Amino acid sequence: MINIIPIVKVSYIIFRFMKHINKKLYNLIKEIFIKHKLSSEHAEISAKAIINAEFVGAYGHGLSRLKMYCDRIKKKVINPKPKIKIKKISQSISQIDADNSIGFVSADIAIKRAIKNAKKTGIGLVAVKNSGHFGLSGYYAEQAVKKNLVTMIYTNAPPAVAPYGARKSLFGTNPICFGTPTYSKVPFILDTSISMINRGKIRFASKNNMKLPSGVALDKFGKPTTNANKALKGVQLPIAGFRGSGLAWMVDILSGVLTGGNHAGRVKDPFEDFSGPQNIGHLFITFKTNLFVKDYNNRIKDNIKKVKRLPKVKGVKEIMYPGQNKYKRYKMNLNKEIKISKIIKEELEILKK
Amino acid sequence: MINIIPIVKVSYIIFRFMKHINKKLYNLIKEIFIKHKLSSEHAEISAKAIINAEFVGAYGHGLSRLKMYCDRIKKKVINPKPKIKIKKISQSISQIDADNSIGFVSADIAIKRAIKNAKKTGIGLVAVKNSGHFGLSGYYAEQAVKKNLVTMIYTNAPPAVAPYGARKSLFGTNPICFGTPTYSKVPFILDTSISMINRGKIRFASKNNMKLPSGVALDKFGKPTTNANKALKGVQLPIAGFRGSGLAWMVDILSGVLTGGNHAGRVKDPFEDFSGPQNIGHLFITFKTNLFVKDYNNRIKDNIKKVKRLPKVKGVKEIMYPGQNKYKRYKMNLNKEIKISKIIKEELEILKK
Repeated sequence: MINIIPIVKVSYIIFRFMKHINKKLYNLIKEIFIKHKLSSEHAEISAKAIINAEFVGAYGHGLSRLKMYCDRIKKKVINPKPKIKIKKISQSISQIDADNSIGFVSADIAIKRAIKNAKKTGIGLVAVKNSGHFGLSGYYAEQAVKKNLVTMIYTNAPPAVAPYGARKSLFGTNPICFGTPTYSKVPFILDTSISMINRGKIRFASKNNMKLPSGVALDKFGKPTTNANKALKGVQLPIAGFRGSGLAWMVDILSGVLTGGNHAGRVKDPFEDFSGPQNIGHLFITFKTNLFVKDYNNRIKDNIKKVKRLPKVKGVKEIMYPGQNKYKRYKMNLNKEIKISKIIKEELEILKK
Repeated sequence: MINIIPIVKVSYIIFRFMKHINKKLYNLIKEIFIKHKLSSEHAEISAKAIINAEFVGAYGHGLSRLKMYCDRIKKKVINPKPKIKIKKISQSISQIDADNSIGFVSADIAIKRAIKNAKKTGIGLVAVKNSGHFGLSGYYAEQAVKKNLVTMIYTNAPPAVAPYGARKSLFGTNPICFGTPTYSKVPFILDTSISMINRGKIRFASKNNMKLPSGVALDKFGKPTTNANKALKGVQLPIAGFRGSGLAWMVDILSGVLTGGNHAGRVKDPFEDFSGPQNIGHLFITFKTNLFVKDYNNRIKDNIKKVKRLPKVKGVKEIMYPGQNKYKRYKMNLNKEIKISKIIKEELEILKK
């Protein structure tokens, strides 16, 4: 049996109110990772990130990826016993060589280091190379925000989005993430991909013979398509054409070119390409809220209040800020059994054997 | 007569190849600003920014604003003799109180300070408050990029864009700006507003009885409209719905809430509201390219080459990176007389009297 007490201590979000049923699931994920040679500490970090993704409703970053992580460990393209190196560049700046660890672990080390640096000097900048898919950027942003810091996080991802003018994908869905404390229960966490539509939604439409909205994808010949099967063989489009393409490119430069990670379409698809590690790069920026103003708490509260009080479009009950919906789902899912599909249940059964 | 030699010295972009005709225009703008009580130095900084906007084809940030700046000085809502205070927070971090200077001047001081801080410590963070409209973010990004730094610049602006779910505008077109050296003549400068369409284009459509594309604006009742007149009375929509709205909100927080500037829709329209200074906030982030890798120059060159070599959508000749088009226009306009509309010529005549 795994003692739950130290987990309660280290985690400030999850597990405080979690019922037995989710503790069991958490323990199961942890056990699976330990069976796949992760240390107990790394298995805990990874299990927490996966459970969190399920709670907030980001199923594409949750249990649906567990088998993939284990497969990559088995095929030796994720290193279960990494020697992660942290290099101090200055009091504010650190570099992490993740040694092909599972992404959750290097991201967890990186955000903690970025927090430490910002607490010490006002600003933290931490780059990670030789990492892998780390789940949701917002999960790490939350850690910084809980420590009363503003944060910006960038990571690249395998090719999914065509640069503006191209008919082949090269950029990942490259999220832009920004978080700030709100001095309320619900932090402001923007965590937005720069593609018009999530790949998961295209897969869902394909399986269910549904049409895609127009303007979200091109077929393999570079022609706009609303056919999900053709879209899967083609490319996804960035938000807002040249603008979104530029934002995706910015993220590839910040998280790949700058950090020493893979870039320019070289990040391997974790589900399909086992020919080597992903070598994803991440960049974490953190800074104190009170560098320039004494009353950041009142200012941000006032800012949010002003937006929320605007007259609404018909049918809209509340103007939400980024992070509110995820928090709602999180609270809703925290105290109930998480629904797991038959396929994933079967995967879990096999993985724990 | 104004001696042109010191200008050539301080400017690294403009004036190297500029013909007499544009020098004359530059001198005229400078004289107009001096007539409106700006110091010679501040008049030079402002004239350069305005000429640059004309060269790159961003006419909405060029001569079309000159009268507005002068009007605001006359009505004492821009301070022509500001006492700009620079406060050192740390070796990396500085705060600037612009004392309601014309925006160009405080932005110029800020980017120079951000460059200095990054050169010294690897990273620079500079916040500005009590500033005004500073023209194009990309113009300042270029300064940092020329000094071999990566940069991110945020500024807010008067209400133009409705937050997602609202039928009243509150966010400005709040640009996101990112720049990196490319080790070629043309820097990578992303400078993108988060609105679907520029306000200038809506004004143009209104004057010429043209329809707007769908999905770019709402009328004053919150209903989607393609009628430009109704759009002008209504609100502009952010790119990509909730995502773009979140990005605009992020910029308002970074440049307003954090810096001590106005935010939450309180930045006054510079053309219409003379009841007080704008108190716009700006945030400048700069860092060295070689913090984490030794061969950033090769990496960024390789990155751009890989994207440019992708197969293209039919009709596309070249995949462009952000900044390329503006650079092309800049080069094109540098050696020829800038076309000035009759209205603006008349304004210039009156202003110089």
